[in-house]
Amino acid sequence: MGRESVKLFSCVLSPVGRRVEWALKLKGVDYEYVEEDIFNKSTLLLELNPVHNKVPVLVHHHKPIAESLIILQYIDQTWNQYPLLPQHPYQRALARFWGTVADKLAKTSWDAMCRSGEEQEKIVNEAREVMDKIEEEIKGKKFFGGENIGYIDIAFGWIPCWLPLWEEVGSMQIVDPLKHSAISAWITNFVTHPVIKDCLPPRDKMLVYSLRRKQDYSSTLPA
Amino acid sequence: MGRESVKLFSCVLSPVGRRVEWALKLKGVDYEYVEEDIFNKSTLLLELNPVHNKVPVLVHHHKPIAESLIILQYIDQTWNQYPLLPQHPYQRALARFWGTVADKLAKTSWDAMCRSGEEQEKIVNEAREVMDKIEEEIKGKKFFGGENIGYIDIAFGWIPCWLPLWEEVGSMQIVDPLKHSAISAWITNFVTHPVIKDCLPPRDKMLVYSLRRKQDYSSTLPA
Repeated sequence: MGRESVKLFSCVLSPVGRRVEWALKLKGVDYEYVEEDIFNKSTLLLELNPVHNKVPVLVHHHKPIAESLIILQYIDQTWNQYPLLPQHPYQRALARFWGTVADKLAKTSWDAMCRSGEEQEKIVNEAREVMDKIEEEIKGKKFFGGENIGYIDIAFGWIPCWLPLWEEVGSMQIVDPLKHSAISAWITNFVTHPVIKDCLPPRDKMLVYSLRRKQDYSSTLPA
Repeated sequence: MGRESVKLFSCVLSPVGRRVEWALKLKGVDYEYVEEDIFNKSTLLLELNPVHNKVPVLVHHHKPIAESLIILQYIDQTWNQYPLLPQHPYQRALARFWGTVADKLAKTSWDAMCRSGEEQEKIVNEAREVMDKIEEEIKGKKFFGGENIGYIDIAFGWIPCWLPLWEEVGSMQIVDPLKHSAISAWITNFVTHPVIKDCLPPRDKMLVYSLRRKQDYSSTLPA
């Protein structure tokens, strides 16, 4: 356990759980990592997050906090080194806004992977439109946070780490390397960052999990 | 236009738009209100919120901010009088957490209204379970924020103002006055608050809109 009693309940397969790990590592905060089996959640997790029963949960001084983007903001307010959010209220609001875009787009992209045919095509087009807006936002910058990885970069961290695999499993393309050249450059900057490259999710386990969830979804459809 | 150039683009039918109005009124901030027709959105709205094309958008000193909960946080950081969020990082995180619960539950309750039969029953049960957790949270308190209306109260403001109507249109019950006596008491405290009672949404328009949306949803189902 870290000197300050910082525990993270997460799952290697969770794109949102990884956000919290990245933030803690960027800030150099010691923490104890507790892996949860999301198919057989522990009683403790259900007690720590009784409303959603989901990872990640950060427990600091024995007090639990849920929801990855909220945890990021808590971490940023609690440990000042390596700021994640800008200070100015308007810039903070914009960072929070892009955080919600990241959450919604992750859900849309996952849904697209699970579906097929016309239904998938419709969702992929919606996702691409949002990706076009993100392309405008990152153009000319190394990171969304400027020279350093910040809150928005962490929120969008599932794009470099999970999306290529979801695209493979779903036989679809959401990021177009020609059209989204700034996003493609950002992806390289992100995954080669010294902290991030040592904390990437395991591709083999992610592939098995994504295939399983796509099959689960297909099996719930009417024959 | 207020001295500070504060403009709110919203719609009287939007539960999340109303949150911003309540916050501005509680803080005594002058603002210009611009009503948007959500069936025929203005070009200006699409420019102000190009990612989601949705109300509410707050424009302060000609800079747009979208997403109601993010706007509330911006308002709280910009105008210090009548604080909406607590100061302590952990209490702030909890307030933000309940804000996300409020958003998800509003979506669940709206979905329940649109559906029927077993599908509706399943969603209603999910919503009731969350309502049980909210009951525990509000028990023994006048408002979620203590003696004054705060961020969580505003986030849950759709429960007193919209939910009874959604329950009527959907022929369902999510708040049970016997089981949820603390929520019921909070509802009374909320709607009789001097600022809120003068800024309640128009029931007749809401009813027409909710019925229309339920019909729209039904018409998309396979025959």
